[in-house]
Formats: sequence, C-alpha cells, structure tokens
Amino acid sequence: MNIGLIGSGNVATHLGLALHNNGHRVVQVYSRNLTHAQALASQLQAQAIDSIEALDITLDIYIIAVKDGAISTIAAQLTAFNLQGTVVHTSGSTDIAVLSGVGQNTGVLYPLQTFSKAQTIDFKKVPLLLEASNPHVLAQLDELAKGLSPHIYHYSSAQRRSLHLAAVVACNFSNYLYSVANQYLNEQGVSFDLLKPLILETAQKVQQHAPITVQTGPAVRGDQAILDMHLNMLQQQPELQQLYQVLSEGIGKLHQQEI
Amino acid sequence: MNIGLIGSGNVATHLGLALHNNGHRVVQVYSRNLTHAQALASQLQAQAIDSIEALDITLDIYIIAVKDGAISTIAAQLTAFNLQGTVVHTSGSTDIAVLSGVGQNTGVLYPLQTFSKAQTIDFKKVPLLLEASNPHVLAQLDELAKGLSPHIYHYSSAQRRSLHLAAVVACNFSNYLYSVANQYLNEQGVSFDLLKPLILETAQKVQQHAPITVQTGPAVRGDQAILDMHLNMLQQQPELQQLYQVLSEGIGKLHQQEI
Repeated sequence: MNIGLIGSGNVATHLGLALHNNGHRVVQVYSRNLTHAQALASQLQAQAIDSIEALDITLDIYIIAVKDGAISTIAAQLTAFNLQGTVVHTSGSTDIAVLSGVGQNTGVLYPLQTFSKAQTIDFKKVPLLLEASNPHVLAQLDELAKGLSPHIYHYSSAQRRSLHLAAVVACNFSNYLYSVANQYLNEQGVSFDLLKPLILETAQKVQQHAPITVQTGPAVRGDQAILDMHLNMLQQQPELQQLYQVLSEGIGKLHQQEI
Repeated sequence: MNIGLIGSGNVATHLGLALHNNGHRVVQVYSRNLTHAQALASQLQAQAIDSIEALDITLDIYIIAVKDGAISTIAAQLTAFNLQGTVVHTSGSTDIAVLSGVGQNTGVLYPLQTFSKAQTIDFKKVPLLLEASNPHVLAQLDELAKGLSPHIYHYSSAQRRSLHLAAVVACNFSNYLYSVANQYLNEQGVSFDLLKPLILETAQKVQQHAPITVQTGPAVRGDQAILDMHLNMLQQQPELQQLYQVLSEGIGKLHQQEI
C-alpha cells in the first residue's frame, strides 16, 4: 500500500521502518520540522514535507503518529482535503472519534510497545490494536498489520484506553521503581548492576504465571520484622519510606482479598 | 566440599541442586519436616534428617537456608556443637553477626534472585554476595561460589541489607503493579496477555540503560490531559487512583530534579 506518514518521532520511525521493510511504500513523511522529516524520509526512500498542503491526496493510508495532544490539530488540517484514503492514528488514549471530520474511512493502529530511538524493536512481538470506522477499513488495517506482527487485536477506543492506563501502571511505574532503587543504591555505594538479573527474572516470571501467584517479598509473607527494619532504614529518605509503606500495604490488602 | 544443608525451601532446593551439579557433596539435608527433607535429599543423594542432634559435625560447610526469622534459632542450636567447619546463612537482610556464637568460621552466601519451585533458574546469571568472618572463610566461599556463577561480589551486611531493600522496591513492588494492572484489565474485559511484551521490554531496557534515562509515559512528559483522564477513569477504583497519583507525582519530582 502507498502510505503517508504524519510525524517523525519514535512511533513514526519504528512503524515507518517496519512498513517499509514489509514491502509497503511510504510515499511521504510530514513533520513541521523539515530536518526531522528528511532524517526519517531518507531511510524510507520517501519525500519529506513540512507543509500539510504538500500532502499527496491519492494515497491509500495516512498514519498520524504524533503526540496525543497534536492529533486533533492534524485532523482539523486534513478535513479540507476530503481524503478518500484511510486516515488512522496510533494513540492508545485517543478515541477514534477525533478523526470523524476527516472522512468516511478512519481507524486506529496502536502498537502497544515502548519505543525509544536507542533501542531496536522486534515488531513481530508487538501487539497491534486495531479499530476502524467500517468493516472495509478494518479489513484493510488487518491486511496492513498482519505483515508486521501476528499479534493483532480488535478493541474499542474504551478498551484501548484501559489498556494504555494499565500499561502506565505496569510499565512506566515499574521503570520509576527501578529508578528509585538505582538512586537509593547509588547513595549506599552499591552497584545497580546487581539488581538487573532479578528485574529481568521478575518480568519473565509473569510471561508464564499470573503475577498475583508469583508475588514474593516481606509484604506478602507478612514478615513484619523485615518491613519494620526497611522502614527504619529509610528514615532519611521520607519519600521512599512513604512509597515503601503504601506499596507494602497494597500487597498486604491484595493478598488478604485472595485468601 | 562436603556440605550440610539446613532447610528445604526454595533457596535450599535451588542452591543444593546447583552445588550438587557442580561436583560438591551435599551430605545431609535437615528440615523439621522429615518429608520435606527427604524430598530434597533424594535429589541430592543425601541423608535426610529432622533432628539437629543428628548433624554430622565433620562437614566443611553448613548452609543455613531457612526463613530469616528462623536463622537465629538454628544458630542457637548449633552453638552446642562447637563446629570447626564454616557456617553460612543465605539471607539478604540478616547480619553475619547472627552466627557469631556458632564458631570462628562464619559467613554469608546470598544469591540475589527470586526463587520459586515452579521456575528453573540459571545459576550462572545469579549474583552471589559473599561475606566472611575471616579471610580464610572468604577464600573458601569464593571457591565454592565461583563454580556456581561468575557474578561474585564481596559486600558487608549493611550493603547487602540495602540491596535487599532495593530488590523489594524494584522487583516485589513491580510484580505488585503487574498484579494491579492485571486485576484492572480483568474488570475491563481486556486480556493481560497484551501487556506481557511491554513488561518484558521495560525490564530489558534497563539492562543496558539507566532507568531514569528511559522513563516514558504521561507523567515524565508532563502530559496533564492524559494524567487527568486516567485519574478520572479510576474514580470507581479509589485505591488504584491514589496509587496512580502517588507514583505519577514521584515521576514528576524525580525528573524535575534531573532537569
């Protein structure tokens, strides 16, 4: 398919490259910043544009991969074109309805993964969540997506929003806990490297087991002596002490529910 | 070396098997529960005992791998034997001093990993933290440990305690967040399976990068519209709403410090 890519950030880059490597033709890359557009377009043998007016209106699919807050602005700009092609966005938290003024054929292609330019991603392992304004578009998105990943899901905007919230809790917040542990260990003169195998194993365990069944640590054991010792060790770090208290209480409550 | 294993739980099992497979001879396995002792001893071609009085006092090393709270009880029982061999415990949070009454040769061998009987562990990837009452014992523990894992560290009881606290924060608490996300998704009719690749990628990212440098999500972007939407979506889940608020504020503060 002939594709117009609107955006040049992490998602646009990883998605554009995956589509390009899958035999699709990314015809144009749009960014407000021409240098950014060119950097990505050159990798995709595409044309870089920094004006929406320069958009080729004959393409099959336009993919809006910009910050959540900018999607409605792009959608408003596209309204004038009366596009026949499909217009999709790639956001977990944005309703498909944001595109309703753009045309009849709209959808969402949400890759549920954390993208950073430093790290390559195996798209075959990325769940792709699709939503479409009509069955024709859904079939088209299925066709596009199935070359990228075998993990295709059809979910509503509401479900996608829930999933994005859960991803923030399970992943963004976990990474924050890694940061807090790293900072604390630096203060204690201990290398964060020692924690890395344990962090990986903790994530690997829940690939096979429900997380509630593999909870370990003093809070789930009800080991009050260790909990008290840890809280006492954190008297000079009141914020971490509070975090420790809140999360340990949460574990205690969750597992009481289970018993 | 000839080893006496005191305990038959997860750590005793994984450590005993690793030592056995490394050519060491586990001579005895002690547990208060003879059936538990036998279950492990049979895998190690060792003798199962359920009475401390039956302990062979000629062994090179005695490894106390029991719950933290039970270590001092075992140590008190061993005092009477006047053991010449080395006595170690395997606890992150317990001071080496708990063993001071047992003899001259004491130490700690702390494998920093989360063990469950359901999951096999590649010991070669497990950091082993050693501490000893004298240089002779440290050399002996180095010799024992280096066959199990190349990741050997010498740390004091205070540093080991800090590391254990950090492990609770980075790993036990992350697993709790996975559980909370799982529960929330169940309520929303969305499969937790979709989050699994993202959870794994989040843990993999920090193997190569400092966690603070790869933080993603609405809180670090300062995306107040998404934060407000998420808090609003959680009005029926006040505990999760509070957790979301506390952790998002934490991310905001941590990254303000950095700027």
